[in-house]
Formats: sequence, C-alpha cells, structure tokens
Amino acid sequence: VNTFSSVEVIGGGLIGTSIALKLAKNGSQVRVVDSNAAHAKVANSLIGSSLLAENAPIECVVVATPVEALAEVIVSALISNPKCIVIDIGSIKTKVILDVWTLTESMSNKVELRERYIPTHPMAGREVSGPDGARSDLFEGRAWAITPHSQSKEPTLNRVEALVREFGAVVYRMSPEEHDRQVAMTSHLPQLLASLLASVLKSPLDLAGQGLRDMTRLAHSNPAMWAPIVQGNRSELEPLLNEIIKSINDLKDKLFEKRLYL
Amino acid sequence: VNTFSSVEVIGGGLIGTSIALKLAKNGSQVRVVDSNAAHAKVANSLIGSSLLAENAPIECVVVATPVEALAEVIVSALISNPKCIVIDIGSIKTKVILDVWTLTESMSNKVELRERYIPTHPMAGREVSGPDGARSDLFEGRAWAITPHSQSKEPTLNRVEALVREFGAVVYRMSPEEHDRQVAMTSHLPQLLASLLASVLKSPLDLAGQGLRDMTRLAHSNPAMWAPIVQGNRSELEPLLNEIIKSINDLKDKLFEKRLYL
Repeated sequence: VNTFSSVEVIGGGLIGTSIALKLAKNGSQVRVVDSNAAHAKVANSLIGSSLLAENAPIECVVVATPVEALAEVIVSALISNPKCIVIDIGSIKTKVILDVWTLTESMSNKVELRERYIPTHPMAGREVSGPDGARSDLFEGRAWAITPHSQSKEPTLNRVEALVREFGAVVYRMSPEEHDRQVAMTSHLPQLLASLLASVLKSPLDLAGQGLRDMTRLAHSNPAMWAPIVQGNRSELEPLLNEIIKSINDLKDKLFEKRLYL
Repeated sequence: VNTFSSVEVIGGGLIGTSIALKLAKNGSQVRVVDSNAAHAKVANSLIGSSLLAENAPIECVVVATPVEALAEVIVSALISNPKCIVIDIGSIKTKVILDVWTLTESMSNKVELRERYIPTHPMAGREVSGPDGARSDLFEGRAWAITPHSQSKEPTLNRVEALVREFGAVVYRMSPEEHDRQVAMTSHLPQLLASLLASVLKSPLDLAGQGLRDMTRLAHSNPAMWAPIVQGNRSELEPLLNEIIKSINDLKDKLFEKRLYL
C-alpha cells in the first residue's frame, strides 16, 4: 500500500528518520541524506534492507531540515529531481512558501516547479532530537496538516494525502494562514509559556508535582530548533503574547483589589 | 500502624474524603463532616465499617475545607475538641496561620490552642472535585509539607509526621514562608498560566496535540477553589507575574529585531 515506491528524506533528525522508518516498513525504498554524516549513517542503518540505491530514480522527496534551511532545500530538490513531488514537514507554512516563491521567482519553469511542491506539517514530536529517538509509529493517530498554495493541483494533493494516511495520521487540509494561526495557539504559545515558566523557577522546589512537570515538559525541547519557528510565525504570535500580558495585568489588578476573593 | 485511633475529617471534598478512606484502610475509626450533607453522606458511605460513632472521642481533626473557611474551622475544632491535634491541608500556609492567630489573640488559652494546631499541605489533587473522585492512594509518593509555626512543639510535629507517612507521602518540613514561596512557583503560577493559555485559544483547533493538552490540563480545575488560594498567596505571586511579563516583553523585542533568528 505504498504511495511512492522510492523516497528520499532530506534531514535525518527525529521527524525525518521516523518518516523514513515508516516508509521502509510500508514497502518503499527509502534513503536519508543529511549534512551531518553521522546522522545520515545512523538513519540509513535503521532502514536496513529497504535502503534506496545511490542512483535509483526518486518519486518523492521529503524535506525535513530545520525550518531556516527549508526553502533553499525544497527549491534545490525540485530542480535536482524533475517530475518528483517534493513535500516539507516544517512547523510554519506561510513564510516557507513565501521564501520558495522568492527563490523561484526569476526561473522560467517556476510554475512547474511550484506545482510539484506540497507544504505539510505533522503534529508530532518528542523532547528528544536526532535519529536515535526516531519511531516508525510517531505519527499514528496524529493530525497532519496539508496546506495547498496558489499553484497546488488536486491530483498531487491527493497523492500526498494518500502518503500521509500511510503513517496512520489524520489529514487536515487547510490554508497556510489557517495552519499558522492554529499552531501559534496549539504549539508555539504553549512552547513559549513552558519556557517562560521554567525560566522563573528558583530552587529548591521540594514541593514540585505533576502539574509543574506537565507545564514545563515542552521547555526541554531544543531552543535552537524553536527560535526560528516562533520568529517565522511572529505575526500570529504577537497578538497572542499581547493578550497574555493583558490577562496577567488584569489578574494582578484583581489580586490586589480590596475585595477578599477574586 | 495507625497514628490516631479516631479521626474526624471536616470537609468531604476530594482531598478530605481521600484522607478518610486511607485512614479507614489503615485501621483508624474515621468520619467526615461537611456542611454539604450530600457530600458527607457519600464520603461516610465509602468509609463503611470503620465509620467513627457519633459521640466517640476524637484524637485528631483534619480540616479539609476550602481555604477561605480554614481559619475559622480550625479554631472552632481546637475549641470543641480539647487535647485534640488539629491539622489543616490548605494550599497556602502563612495567611491561614496569621488568621488563626488573629482569631485566637484575645483567648486566655491561646498558647495551648495554637500548640495543638499543625499546618500541613499534601501536594496531591485531581481535576475532579467532590467525594466521588476520592482515592485512598491519592498521596502515595507525593510530597506533603509540614510547616511549623512559632508555637509548634516537637512531639506534636512528630505525631503529625507519622500520620503523613501513613499515606505513603514524603514529609518535607519547612517554614510557612518557604512553603508559600515554593507553591507560588510549582503550583499557583502553573495554574494561572494554564488558565491564561486556555483563555486565549480560539476554535477551530484541529492541530491541537499532547503539548497543548498538558499545558491546559490544570485549567480544568475549579476556579472558585483556586481564586482564594492565589489571592491568599499574592505577595509571592506578584513578583513572579512581573517576571513573566518582563520575559514576554523581552521575547517580543527579540522576535521583531532585524536579526533573522533569535
């Protein structure tokens, strides 16, 4: 039931390697490439006998690099692999699409290139990073956004949706703007609040319990990975941060009013 | 191995009923009283054959009411039950002790009354409230603070520590001020941030995942219970809220600086 018989995953981190493992399990030939040779080696050794040969043709490229590298790698993959569908799995969508547009603007075949690019985002992750934490079932039951752009065509979108369903994920098709609005609330703001909370804690904290553990778990994620994500979605995040500040100020006013209780 | 052979629990909510259930299991005679007759009935029916008879003498009273009622109920229990040790399990400590001091200030036997009162706080809870959610193992492995005041005596403290260990809890003895400093960070601030985060979410949120669930779980707790707790600890909370506001403003500055990434 594999949608693509041969897939190249660019980026052998947690997500990229998990994708490669699941595709291999589903019967695709797959390989992982990574500028970090050690990561690529670990990832490809996990793939085992389904490893895609060096010069074999590729039907699909999955770009799973950090977000700051996405646009360049997507465009390069589109150019290097004619007719290949290229998807990315980045945590922000409008900025990446805009950057892909900018990079392809002066190219004579820009319409054909852009048509082959489908932006996506699986809502999955762990507090570990790198290929060692990869799991083929990472996307089971998770939401996976597919965010068509102005050049997206239905047959290509349908193939990518079939690919996503191979992971046991639930497809949500929505605009890139709607995606960015939602992840600002469901992912980026929680991430920032967890980090802010963790940053004000002062030891000793003998009385810490499950509540605090839940509220600071996300703060253990890699800040180098998160910084460009939240910065890339700052126009959605700014009004939410302003709302939080306003709510804290309202709360402080209530706490210090003369009324005995809130 | 029961520290007290007969215990009255005042307040048949989640915590009070869980305490009663564990004491009954450990071989104490126990009863729950509550101004809500339905709660008392449910709680006492769960106790079964270990139910303490109406006029039997009491060795210990556990006050487990909402925090706004604690001081009055504690003082009333100290007066009604001579020689009895009275503990409370309230989420804030300095304000409750201060209120007990104020209420007993004009009493000729105030030293004897205050000596018999030991303030405590088990770090346990659930997002459900009322006796139906009670579990005898609620305190297993949890921290349980004991916060001596100026009139506390070692033999009484030791008996209460033995009681706490009956629940499988880990005793932390500390000053009321240290307790309030810690719970501001480990409990009250996480609680407030979870509620603030929940309040800025706008549907639809198809892309919500485990991170958001963890970060908003505490927001499902009862606001009527939490309001007097955070207000009672406002002097510890205010500087933390100011730190959070400052951190959010610093973050906003960074997001909108010309540098590409944080």
